[in-house]
Amino acid sequence: MMRKYSEDEKYMKEAIRQARKAEAIGDVPIGCVIVHEGKIIARGYNRRNREKTVLAHAELQAMKKACKIIGDWRLEDCTMYITLEPCQMCAGAIVQARITRVVIGSMNSKAGCAGSILNLLQMKEFNHQVDLEKGILEEECSQMLSDFFRRLRTRRKKEKELEKELHKLQEEETEKDLQKQPEEELEKEL
Amino acid sequence: MMRKYSEDEKYMKEAIRQARKAEAIGDVPIGCVIVHEGKIIARGYNRRNREKTVLAHAELQAMKKACKIIGDWRLEDCTMYITLEPCQMCAGAIVQARITRVVIGSMNSKAGCAGSILNLLQMKEFNHQVDLEKGILEEECSQMLSDFFRRLRTRRKKEKELEKELHKLQEEETEKDLQKQPEEELEKEL
Repeated sequence: MMRKYSEDEKYMKEAIRQARKAEAIGDVPIGCVIVHEGKIIARGYNRRNREKTVLAHAELQAMKKACKIIGDWRLEDCTMYITLEPCQMCAGAIVQARITRVVIGSMNSKAGCAGSILNLLQMKEFNHQVDLEKGILEEECSQMLSDFFRRLRTRRKKEKELEKELHKLQEEETEKDLQKQPEEELEKEL
Repeated sequence: MMRKYSEDEKYMKEAIRQARKAEAIGDVPIGCVIVHEGKIIARGYNRRNREKTVLAHAELQAMKKACKIIGDWRLEDCTMYITLEPCQMCAGAIVQARITRVVIGSMNSKAGCAGSILNLLQMKEFNHQVDLEKGILEEECSQMLSDFFRRLRTRRKKEKELEKELHKLQEEETEKDLQKQPEEELEKEL
């Protein structure tokens, strides 16, 4: 029997689709959508390597579009869906823009700032705190990332092996050249 | 005798000039420059209200340009000069971009994230820590902000007074109209 998706899962599915776009351009697969009044108003995916700027994180890409749609720097009454726990920059941007609710797929224990390293989204010292939901389609989100990094490691290993092979061939060529040299020189001297 | 400015003060002066541009468009005066190999490679000023997005903070504006110049999302070997202690988003972006050194004019005790509320720039849990210098041309930077907010309060007070005056006048007009009405009606009845 087909499992019925909840509202949150439905939007997280779309965030995952965005993450796949990042993967397709060779960037780490992280995706984001922003929902306002029951409608997706902005989408974003990580393009850090492609665009060569940290400002191309999925969340900031989506926020930029959402601000254009809403016509305000305040993104109140918006819910953000992210496949991965946000970094310190994106968590900070979420608080600055006063986003009401954030829904996270998988956590990032090494660098996440919505509970892992610290929780910037819910600090009482700031003038805004975010409603937080974690673990929506967690396995799918987390699997997508570990698959990506496993493939990356395999590719890098293969690249290294090929480099080694190439280097070996070049060395052999050089040796042959050296062995040939006298003959050639002899021929020239004829 | 003219006081000689240090290197840091010289660049902070340029950050202040940027802040003045924010002021000119009615945004909170905050300015930023990024220096690489002894040269200013990017400038930015706060345009949050003008652009209607939090991504228009001075620091992010400058970082966007610097990434284009350097051609990388890593802004290593760069020094950022900011007239005001960065917020959680900008401090986060600085760490994400691995900026080497940050020089701050005045602190922001209510919301700053380079020592006031917390210090995102130097957390050992992250993979990058920033060299930090505070209090460069502090008085000038801080004065510029307090002047701006004082003028804003004065203007808002004046606006309120004018609104009240206008309201009073309108009420008087209405009263007069009411008083006039019977005469007019009488005239019509002639």
